[in-house]
Amino acid sequence: METNDIQGDAEFSADERDAVYKCIFNRRDVRGQFLPDPIPDQVLARLLTAAHHAPSVGFMQPWDFIVVRDSAIKQRVRDSFQAANLEAAGMFEDEKQKTYRQLKLEGIVEAPIGICITCDRSRTGAVGLGRTHQADMDLYSAVCAVQNLWLAARVENIGVGWVSIIRHDDLRGALGIPPSIQPIAYLCVGYVTHFLRKPELETAGWLPRMPLSDVVWIDRWHAREASDPLLQCL
Amino acid sequence: METNDIQGDAEFSADERDAVYKCIFNRRDVRGQFLPDPIPDQVLARLLTAAHHAPSVGFMQPWDFIVVRDSAIKQRVRDSFQAANLEAAGMFEDEKQKTYRQLKLEGIVEAPIGICITCDRSRTGAVGLGRTHQADMDLYSAVCAVQNLWLAARVENIGVGWVSIIRHDDLRGALGIPPSIQPIAYLCVGYVTHFLRKPELETAGWLPRMPLSDVVWIDRWHAREASDPLLQCL
Repeated sequence: METNDIQGDAEFSADERDAVYKCIFNRRDVRGQFLPDPIPDQVLARLLTAAHHAPSVGFMQPWDFIVVRDSAIKQRVRDSFQAANLEAAGMFEDEKQKTYRQLKLEGIVEAPIGICITCDRSRTGAVGLGRTHQADMDLYSAVCAVQNLWLAARVENIGVGWVSIIRHDDLRGALGIPPSIQPIAYLCVGYVTHFLRKPELETAGWLPRMPLSDVVWIDRWHAREASDPLLQCL
Repeated sequence: METNDIQGDAEFSADERDAVYKCIFNRRDVRGQFLPDPIPDQVLARLLTAAHHAPSVGFMQPWDFIVVRDSAIKQRVRDSFQAANLEAAGMFEDEKQKTYRQLKLEGIVEAPIGICITCDRSRTGAVGLGRTHQADMDLYSAVCAVQNLWLAARVENIGVGWVSIIRHDDLRGALGIPPSIQPIAYLCVGYVTHFLRKPELETAGWLPRMPLSDVVWIDRWHAREASDPLLQCL
């Protein structure tokens, strides 16, 4: 092992640590606060670079990034969302449906940029390191790229919203994505008027934030001692 | 909108921004550098809190976290990895198989702690906001929790390695996870002797890092002008 192979600036300071936690806690799914201000290409390049440095199974890097600026294409994506969202609303019952119909769930047209992140499942051939026993690891790698981009955007004071109420084939149609390529996320990306303190679905009473202590177990599923010192720290 | 609903400390400074990028670029998949030093419960609680603040579709929070300390359970997970890895090696041809067999791909027993992150697909009922047209969004939410934990660990100077060469049912068996719960990741977690400058698979010549400019497109799949100013910034 040569010294050159080791990270020289490996240690993080308390300030650096706090910055990362602030980013994680202040990240929001943005739907309604987009400004039309353009994102400078240098900034957008930083977001894409962050996404490209996500972990990937077998160092496969299965992602592509389609940066959507064209307003006609954004409108087509929006139309596909609208069709899916009408169907979706009908699936919820009574009060829940009433709440659902009042939620703003996307900012596709308002956001100056869309970014579609995809997964090319055959990028590195038929057999992939780390995918021999868990075939979906390539999809998960592309999701990690989404999360990296989302966090990088937050520290650039840029909002991101993930639109999932849309058929993959509609997204393929709007963006010319071939059938062999799996769309992972369509993201609305732009500067914002403000970031909300809490997730919008929490504020709207859709679901509460679960106590972390409800979902932490020791050694085995649903096992733990109430006196476990880790649980006292949650 | 009350002022109270808006993030007060919304803006990030240049230093905070740089800290997040440093974290993203210096994160590594750690397999061979684990130290036995225990992770304080307060630190582990911070990692789990970061994971719990991942985005989740419909604010579903579908994850559970099993913290594995028991060495007999870690050994059982390791045995399952070994069995899968032997099968996996046989799937690669000639030179690739030779390289594969030389790679260290996990630190299950050496790492003081394992964390299994799972997805409870029915946590919030049969119909989920945001999952009506993309059913796998719940799995993707749990993956975002993995990536949050991984990045938080990096700023705590803690290494994380994701073990995917293992059957889900073996993992269920070792940790008592019921069939209805989907394992997402088994992570090896611990302090390390050092962090490597580059991904190990890159250094080992398994695959090179792709140029980012090979995977960025404008408006449509595989479309772009070579003169596009964004491409000049990548």
